[in-house]
Amino acid sequence: MPILSLDEARSLAESVFIKCGASADNARITGAALIDAEADGQKGHGLSRIPSYAAQLKTGKVNGAAIPSVIVRFSSAFRIDADSGFAYPAIDLAIRELTPLAREHGVATAAIFRSHHFGQAGAHVERLAEKGLLAFIFGNSPKGIAFWGGKNPMMGTNPIAFAAPVEDGPPVVIDLALSVAARGKIIAAQKNNETIPEGWALDKDGNPTTDPVAALEGSMAPMGGAKGSALALMVEILAAALSGGQFGFEASSLFTGDGPPPALGHSLLVIDPGKLSGGAYFERMGVLMEAIAAEEGARLPGVSRLANREKSKKEGLSVSVPLYKEILSLTGAN
Amino acid sequence: MPILSLDEARSLAESVFIKCGASADNARITGAALIDAEADGQKGHGLSRIPSYAAQLKTGKVNGAAIPSVIVRFSSAFRIDADSGFAYPAIDLAIRELTPLAREHGVATAAIFRSHHFGQAGAHVERLAEKGLLAFIFGNSPKGIAFWGGKNPMMGTNPIAFAAPVEDGPPVVIDLALSVAARGKIIAAQKNNETIPEGWALDKDGNPTTDPVAALEGSMAPMGGAKGSALALMVEILAAALSGGQFGFEASSLFTGDGPPPALGHSLLVIDPGKLSGGAYFERMGVLMEAIAAEEGARLPGVSRLANREKSKKEGLSVSVPLYKEILSLTGAN
Repeated sequence: MPILSLDEARSLAESVFIKCGASADNARITGAALIDAEADGQKGHGLSRIPSYAAQLKTGKVNGAAIPSVIVRFSSAFRIDADSGFAYPAIDLAIRELTPLAREHGVATAAIFRSHHFGQAGAHVERLAEKGLLAFIFGNSPKGIAFWGGKNPMMGTNPIAFAAPVEDGPPVVIDLALSVAARGKIIAAQKNNETIPEGWALDKDGNPTTDPVAALEGSMAPMGGAKGSALALMVEILAAALSGGQFGFEASSLFTGDGPPPALGHSLLVIDPGKLSGGAYFERMGVLMEAIAAEEGARLPGVSRLANREKSKKEGLSVSVPLYKEILSLTGAN
Repeated sequence: MPILSLDEARSLAESVFIKCGASADNARITGAALIDAEADGQKGHGLSRIPSYAAQLKTGKVNGAAIPSVIVRFSSAFRIDADSGFAYPAIDLAIRELTPLAREHGVATAAIFRSHHFGQAGAHVERLAEKGLLAFIFGNSPKGIAFWGGKNPMMGTNPIAFAAPVEDGPPVVIDLALSVAARGKIIAAQKNNETIPEGWALDKDGNPTTDPVAALEGSMAPMGGAKGSALALMVEILAAALSGGQFGFEASSLFTGDGPPPALGHSLLVIDPGKLSGGAYFERMGVLMEAIAAEEGARLPGVSRLANREKSKKEGLSVSVPLYKEILSLTGAN
């Protein structure tokens, strides 16, 4: 399998997006986000997205020339119009603006609309935690999970990510989708003619199924049953209603070039914990980290991500031959 | 069974707490919160708590004369010292202060420490949503759930509640603990010599168990497995580290009069969605409510709570004879 250094992979992604009509800034920021996700082991948000992002640039479903802008502003909250572009430049703008506001006011929030797939959710809040800030991000996605008691997919798998700074170590990063399993795993099972584990999905009549075809015609099971479904509803409200974005049941695919822009939303919430806790926060986090380290077998969420990142820096990224060829062809290089 | 009107029940709770040393304000606010929870069908946070709250007042584990105060203040964030009193007066203060701040700044947050059992979490955020605000509350509780991969209970069952205003109806209220089941149900099974369903709890070696005795020596299963455990960790950070409060593994019981104050923490986050969304929020929520209503079988979280509330207003609260006698004896009335 071809091996790419992180720099090579970033350049490749960037050149595909420029070739397909993205501005230099949008291509660079978006390419870097995908490669960072791939490096962290989040392959569903990595290199595999390049062809579908390219297809959406080509048809104009994603506006490659988008310039995200702050359009409603309060002293510690603002709304961003992502201009039907990729999500990452809008999130970059949000993070830049939120950082000084959270430090000044103790808390700050941003709601982003007319946006798109935001990739590895944890990476966004990790950046804020590296500045000493607690942060949440919520994002909705095209319909996959039913309203509780219903049968049709209506809500996204709706990731929640949260990061908390620690004095002498990397931030704690929590990043989870609200479905039991990723839809990509069901699609893979279908391609390979395999069954899926019970508990992953429901058929179109709302019954549990192990058949990937029936699962894809039905809905994704929310993690934790009714509780996970309630959290998915919470994320629809925080991501779409709060920003004026589209709900999961309104959004077009994040994979194909056809249809209108998905116009999804995200929101970020950022708190300056050192200030708010009267200085207690970092001592408290130290006690928590020690307690986890002292428990046999216990592990922090997200640590495999850091191990993958180190490995990818040293060894580069291995890419399947078909995907590599497809990406190369999109640069016009062959 | 004795039937009490809501007013009678509130007076009774209030008089018990005054008799046991609470200030008039603390007795009134705390009594009302417990009766409201009972009326909503949340019996675990209702009348059954009166004797244990009384025991904690008598020993001084809860400071009946507590005066919660804002001790760190930024323009849209503040920290409250609950003064080792009941949680409700501190949360009342937080809600009073948060409301104008969220309207002015777009977002506001409060972190509360040296606090106690905060009862029906959804009721607190519902009050904010009735003012047109989106709100979260997070609270930690004494240890019940293990760190992921560990065996000992270390984190609380750590409720998350969220409420969102709707233009022409009651707010959407989401209120969930992060354990699969409430500990009270396991205690009830133990008392009745019954087994518990698989999936509720783990024994002290971390294996699933249906034996309530083994469950109480072990830990509560987090809803959704690793994802629920990660959310419980998030709540420990938001409730305890952010406020300078105590973690689940440090806190004393919320039921017995012995030991030091539990000194738990809570945090609230409040957003003015009408403003932030540029006016889109209420239209968007209307679309979401219509979509849920149109799905056969689908239901909003928390609707049974409102039905219970109406029923309790009309029919009063039925109390078991032993509990009623115990409460009466605490007022010194018999």
